[in-house]
Amino acid sequence: MPTLDEIAKLSGYSKATVSRVLNQSPHVSPETREKILAIMKEKDYVPNRNAISLSKGQTQQIGMITMDLSELILRFMNSFVELSGRNGFQTIIYTTGGDQQKELQAFEDLKRKRVDALLILTSVNDTNIIASYCKYGPIVSWQRMDHPEIPSVAMNQYDGYALALEHLIERGYTRIANAFGRPGSINTRSRRLAYEHIMSKHSLPAAEKWYYSSIYSIRDGERVVQSLVEGTDRPDAILCANDLVAAGVLSEARRQRLDVPRGLAIVGFDDSELSRTLGITTVRNPIAGQAENAFLLLAPALLGRNPQLQPLSFSLVKRETT
Amino acid sequence: MPTLDEIAKLSGYSKATVSRVLNQSPHVSPETREKILAIMKEKDYVPNRNAISLSKGQTQQIGMITMDLSELILRFMNSFVELSGRNGFQTIIYTTGGDQQKELQAFEDLKRKRVDALLILTSVNDTNIIASYCKYGPIVSWQRMDHPEIPSVAMNQYDGYALALEHLIERGYTRIANAFGRPGSINTRSRRLAYEHIMSKHSLPAAEKWYYSSIYSIRDGERVVQSLVEGTDRPDAILCANDLVAAGVLSEARRQRLDVPRGLAIVGFDDSELSRTLGITTVRNPIAGQAENAFLLLAPALLGRNPQLQPLSFSLVKRETT
Repeated sequence: MPTLDEIAKLSGYSKATVSRVLNQSPHVSPETREKILAIMKEKDYVPNRNAISLSKGQTQQIGMITMDLSELILRFMNSFVELSGRNGFQTIIYTTGGDQQKELQAFEDLKRKRVDALLILTSVNDTNIIASYCKYGPIVSWQRMDHPEIPSVAMNQYDGYALALEHLIERGYTRIANAFGRPGSINTRSRRLAYEHIMSKHSLPAAEKWYYSSIYSIRDGERVVQSLVEGTDRPDAILCANDLVAAGVLSEARRQRLDVPRGLAIVGFDDSELSRTLGITTVRNPIAGQAENAFLLLAPALLGRNPQLQPLSFSLVKRETT
Repeated sequence: MPTLDEIAKLSGYSKATVSRVLNQSPHVSPETREKILAIMKEKDYVPNRNAISLSKGQTQQIGMITMDLSELILRFMNSFVELSGRNGFQTIIYTTGGDQQKELQAFEDLKRKRVDALLILTSVNDTNIIASYCKYGPIVSWQRMDHPEIPSVAMNQYDGYALALEHLIERGYTRIANAFGRPGSINTRSRRLAYEHIMSKHSLPAAEKWYYSSIYSIRDGERVVQSLVEGTDRPDAILCANDLVAAGVLSEARRQRLDVPRGLAIVGFDDSELSRTLGITTVRNPIAGQAENAFLLLAPALLGRNPQLQPLSFSLVKRETT
């Protein structure tokens, strides 16, 4: 394949002129442009995209950082990838497995201009370290970061959790277990806070003995039920970290012949297809809306536009498990 | 931030020498290297990764092409991303939405050296068009391509489907419906062929009236059952395109008060967590093994190694729906 140098020589124009044609600069006469393009076509010249990126200073790539590829992350990514694709951006996914060094690689790539922007889905590095990279390009986050320089599209899980809890209490459930996700995460802290506030508001005791944490999957949900039935003192409801956990809780409760919802109520979180088909009461989490807002937050830096974010809220979806 | 030019001027060395230091070339004396590195550090110089990629001729990126991000694709990606990450490669996902032009963008990026290799998960372009890009870099496929230049890690779905069908017939089911996926795809054709062969082998009629196609999701599975119960002539078993479909079929069958498995047997495909917790009989599909083999197929071109592919096979996982 010929190089840009050779195209310049063959056409009799300078490299700078050939480069202007490649970059669709208006400062080239139509005749010159046509002559150069004809030679490129004849010689099957393919511009090297890295060279183009270099000259434009943009890679048209957005990096996404995630600990893992879970079902929820997938829903978020689907919306984000679709919207950024429509705007001409490709997505690189950095899966970190929760490793701080691997995750920093993504931030180093922002610094080195390998990506134009970063979207954090889940991060394990200190927010101050992350914020120190903001000077190299825009960084937005799905996860709540609680740092002024890193805007987040996260919704306050307190609100969604409170909806679920008020619903359970209204139905007469008082002995409520919690299957939390990542211990110490902002989401888990918000949910726990909601639980403690709402219980206290109704003069009900918060039952720490039924706090489960690091509960993510179907199998984790099954294990929670197995552990509960071993005890004599049992809750009458379980609030689950997500719908997968709720599906596991429901399946195992059926296997253990627990009476759902009378003996045990189950509430999921997210409103996935799975919760719908299994008839699980859940909290609708507007994931696609959050993904779109994440892209809109990057739009000023990437597209020079400043669109309005859409307002989003949680809602309760009442089904057969409560 | 200073440019490479400025670092060269400040250090008193040529750009070529500075570039050699960046690329860790051995053809630089230790003193020169140290002097140049000291100046880079002092001036907070950050090499532009695009420039580095350009000089090395490798981007350390692998492109993945997919129509969408489904649960099955996710399982495949998880394994592939993990293995390529361990080998120093990042993954770009091109989601095409089934658009031929968008998909060609990925192949153009291989041609333009934006990615070092391509992995096709699902493709909608003609295999001859795809094969014309093989000269620009290695292309492997998950989807069966039936083209000598594009190696595929796909397994013959005939074998898995035959396992499921033999199991149903052995259990006494004879009126067997099929919920197929993408019409005309090689997988669907293999499954249909398996169905027709095995039924004929047992002198049973193949029931084309119960062929459903474009069945992918939980909701699609629910619709199949809704359509079946409307008719008077009903099948006694359904072979499903995947476990999500089987989950939808099971849920809707329960809502319609069908007796599973006596009145209606259900077999899924893939052996996901979901099929396990719901007790759905299914065909174990070694997705992670196929993803690893896909990376191994790229290893000669990317790493200069030629590892052995692992042998893989389907197996039946008998649960409560048969």
